[in-house]
Amino acid sequence: MASSPKRLTGDKPAIDAFIDKFEIFLFDCDGVLWSGDHLFPGTVETLELLRAKGKKTVFVTNNSTKSRADYQKKFTALGISSNIDEIFASAYSSAIYIARILKLPAPKNKVFVIGEAGIETELRAEGIEFIGGTDPAYRRDITPEDYKDIADESMLDPNVGVVLAGLDFHINYLKLSLGYQYLARGAKFLVTNTDSILPSNHTFFPGAGSISIPLINMTGQTPIVLGKPSQAMMDSIKSKFQFDHKTACMVGDRLDTDIKFGLEGKLGGTLAVLTGVMKKEHWEAEEAPVIPHYYVDKLSDLRA
Amino acid sequence: MASSPKRLTGDKPAIDAFIDKFEIFLFDCDGVLWSGDHLFPGTVETLELLRAKGKKTVFVTNNSTKSRADYQKKFTALGISSNIDEIFASAYSSAIYIARILKLPAPKNKVFVIGEAGIETELRAEGIEFIGGTDPAYRRDITPEDYKDIADESMLDPNVGVVLAGLDFHINYLKLSLGYQYLARGAKFLVTNTDSILPSNHTFFPGAGSISIPLINMTGQTPIVLGKPSQAMMDSIKSKFQFDHKTACMVGDRLDTDIKFGLEGKLGGTLAVLTGVMKKEHWEAEEAPVIPHYYVDKLSDLRA
Repeated sequence: MASSPKRLTGDKPAIDAFIDKFEIFLFDCDGVLWSGDHLFPGTVETLELLRAKGKKTVFVTNNSTKSRADYQKKFTALGISSNIDEIFASAYSSAIYIARILKLPAPKNKVFVIGEAGIETELRAEGIEFIGGTDPAYRRDITPEDYKDIADESMLDPNVGVVLAGLDFHINYLKLSLGYQYLARGAKFLVTNTDSILPSNHTFFPGAGSISIPLINMTGQTPIVLGKPSQAMMDSIKSKFQFDHKTACMVGDRLDTDIKFGLEGKLGGTLAVLTGVMKKEHWEAEEAPVIPHYYVDKLSDLRA
Repeated sequence: MASSPKRLTGDKPAIDAFIDKFEIFLFDCDGVLWSGDHLFPGTVETLELLRAKGKKTVFVTNNSTKSRADYQKKFTALGISSNIDEIFASAYSSAIYIARILKLPAPKNKVFVIGEAGIETELRAEGIEFIGGTDPAYRRDITPEDYKDIADESMLDPNVGVVLAGLDFHINYLKLSLGYQYLARGAKFLVTNTDSILPSNHTFFPGAGSISIPLINMTGQTPIVLGKPSQAMMDSIKSKFQFDHKTACMVGDRLDTDIKFGLEGKLGGTLAVLTGVMKKEHWEAEEAPVIPHYYVDKLSDLRA
């Protein structure tokens, strides 16, 4: 069993040693920097402190409903300065994966999207053709004609080679039916992330993993996951910043996504914050799957 | 490993011995008696043959969208005579379970329904209060106000003590959000059945299991299952007909629901038909989980 994480809150020498040890800090956003639209006090100052010491900051989020540009608007609105290149969202990493790694030959390389506008924006930016998404033609009840048109394939686009599922606030029976049919015909199965729940308004709502799990269950297929803790996201970040993994630290509020992401990426450190989903009891449990290297009660404790 | 099933097709002595052995035959419907709206030739005559020999016939279906009365209309339309007491559908067994076994004390005994009209009809017949279901108030997109009203509980009915999920052609993010909230607050979790796919129009569409699996995944809870292969359905049938399980035979087209249902119910026999989902390769596979006692190519082979 791994040892317990070191608590940094209130321990100035330990904090200084911690900050000195790393050159790049990867941050999860919701639950770390803010909660919903509420910025945690000291977030801006903590990021500025790290940057003033020459540290690189990167923001890594599984939220698939926003494009990087959308995300940057949120940073700006909350008073956090950022560069679009610092932002890695799962919609972006999905588009990158499809365009630069999967590289399916035309014409059977169209994407059937189950998700919101953020995915569409990033696919367009990479020149990827897609159907579904926010198209009103898919935001409706299934009809008796649809069953026939799906069965005889007249409603299916023969050029769909990928099904990409992310968080979709407009999920419905028609989209699940079409997603299943494309997968049954051999389309590659990608999901932006597998978080089953989405923290919002101090409670939880269905996450992207709750949108794709019916398709996993129907097809028996295991999708390629682009968000944390998948190392597809880490590869994408590493290819951009070319850092030595030992000099990087992942900061997050979830054991099973953030901390696991950093540990599996063999980063030099992982820092847990207790302002989100995670509680100390999670890693103290006998069966704790992953244990962070460090923890603070809140991110701004690093300013001590 | 269990032995191979005996093929009855074309073997008149074996068929006679098979029919003589049992007093009650439980039939799955779709894939056995008919496919969609297409009645298999010889279905009516086979049922009449069994009844003429004094056998009891019972129809057991996991389809949760129809009430028993709806189902009887389908039998009549296809020319099959039936009595409503012979019909066991998962919406009915769910209502029976809630009313006669669960028996939650009022007032916290209301049911939040994710499903279609068949469930509502059966709940009403048992005098069970419910919300959700086909109510248009739940057939819409989630709004920013909904998030707040769900988080502050003003949108939640404090008297909901059960979440019942079946096949819902109008599944949406709002219903999944509400179902999650009720379960997180301690509501009992019931599902009509767990079939991930629904055969229709010679292909497959999402089944009831694809509607409830996001809730299973979000909550980590294991629901009480009312449909086949759950023995809750068998208990309901046995309590009605008071038969010796050794004298009963389950007839079906799915290993993992029908045949498993009969085997786990310790029925005297299980008969597979090859007119639905099942193929011989399924039970011939090394890892075949369940093996039927008998099989016929099609039900009407019993008339030989």
